[in-house]
Amino acid sequence: MKPLLNIIDKQSGTAFKLKKNDVLTVIDPMGGQVSDMVVFNAHDYNEKLSSGKSLDFEECLLLTKGHHLWSNRSQQMMKILEDTNGRNDFLLAPCSPETFKIMYNHEGEHPSCLANLTQHLKPFGIDADAIPTAFNIFMNVQFDEKGKLSVLPPTSEAGDYIRFKAEMDLLVGLTACSAEDSNGGTFKPIHYVIETEVKPINQHV
Amino acid sequence: MKPLLNIIDKQSGTAFKLKKNDVLTVIDPMGGQVSDMVVFNAHDYNEKLSSGKSLDFEECLLLTKGHHLWSNRSQQMMKILEDTNGRNDFLLAPCSPETFKIMYNHEGEHPSCLANLTQHLKPFGIDADAIPTAFNIFMNVQFDEKGKLSVLPPTSEAGDYIRFKAEMDLLVGLTACSAEDSNGGTFKPIHYVIETEVKPINQHV
Repeated sequence: MKPLLNIIDKQSGTAFKLKKNDVLTVIDPMGGQVSDMVVFNAHDYNEKLSSGKSLDFEECLLLTKGHHLWSNRSQQMMKILEDTNGRNDFLLAPCSPETFKIMYNHEGEHPSCLANLTQHLKPFGIDADAIPTAFNIFMNVQFDEKGKLSVLPPTSEAGDYIRFKAEMDLLVGLTACSAEDSNGGTFKPIHYVIETEVKPINQHV
Repeated sequence: MKPLLNIIDKQSGTAFKLKKNDVLTVIDPMGGQVSDMVVFNAHDYNEKLSSGKSLDFEECLLLTKGHHLWSNRSQQMMKILEDTNGRNDFLLAPCSPETFKIMYNHEGEHPSCLANLTQHLKPFGIDADAIPTAFNIFMNVQFDEKGKLSVLPPTSEAGDYIRFKAEMDLLVGLTACSAEDSNGGTFKPIHYVIETEVKPINQHV
C-alpha cells in the first residue's frame, strides 16, 4: 500500500504517533519553508527531544544524514536516514507570540510554531511550558566565528526532503513555520509521509 | 555587611533562591573549572531557563557581559553584568551518568552535574526530567564553520568571575562540574557570592 501524503497548511501544525522503526519523511513541496519538529516518548511524555543532549552526543551543531536526535534521558529518539537539503537548525526555540513582539516589533495576533504545537499537543496533556527547543527542519541559521547568529532564507528547493527513522515509539509535533524571516518572507505548506513496518536492514531475507 | 563567600566542593552542587535585583557572582577560585547553572522562576518552576529562547533573542551563541538569559516564556531571567573570562557555553546539556558511558566509555558510578542538580532541586519538587540545558559558566566549547564541536579546557584563570543580576525572583541550581574534558582533567571547587538589595543604577541618589 502506498503511504499517504499528509499536508500541513501554511502557518499551521499537527501531531501524530510513530511506532519504533516507522520512517517519517518531511517534504518541502514548494521550497524555502521551515518545519519545526518536537518529539516525545509515546509512553512517557516527560522524555522528550533535547537539543543540549543531541549536540553533545553528536559533537556537532549541524545535524544531518547519519546523526541521531537524542532525548533528555540520553536515549536515541530518531535517526536521520536521508537529508537532500542538508541544512537544519537545532539552536533556536520555536517562534512564539512573544517572538513577533520582541524580534519583529509586531503588535497583535500572529500565528506561531509554539501556538500551533501547543494546540495539537494539548489533547495529549502537553502544554506550552513542556515543549522543548525544536529540531528546525530546513531552517538556515548561520553563525560566524564570534557566535553571531543570522536567520537566512532556507536553501531547500521544491521537493527537498528529510527522512527520520523512529528509534522508539514517539509522539511527534510538526509545523509549517509561521515566522517571516525563517521562510524568506512567504509562508508555504509542509508535506509528510509515514511509512510503517520498515524492517531493519539486518532482517532482510 | 560584607556578603558571604559560599563554596561548592569539587564535583558537587547546590541550590538557592535569589530575589529580583539580587546579584550573584560565580567565581572560579583556582582557574579552569566549569560551573553549570540552571534557573527557575521562584514562584512557578514551570518557567525556566531556555537555551533556545536565549540564543534566539540575543542572536548569539556566546553570551557574555550585556546579554540576558531568557525563560521558556520569553521573559528575561538574568542579566550578565560582568564576565572577566568571557567564554561560556549554552549549547550542551549538563553531564549526566550516561555522558560518561556514551562519551567516555566509563563503567560504573561517576559524579555528574545532572545528578548534583537533581539532588539539590529535588527538595523543591524538580526532578531530572525538568532540568533544562544549563548555562555552562567558564565552559569552553569551540565550533568550526561546519558546526563541529570540541570541548577544550576553560580559559578562566584563578579569580575570574561572572556577575548576574536577577531580573525576577529565582531558584538557582549551581555546580562545580564533574566532567574530565570540560575541566582540563582536574576537578576544583566553585565559589559564589550573593549581594542583596543592589539598587538599579537609575535609582541612585
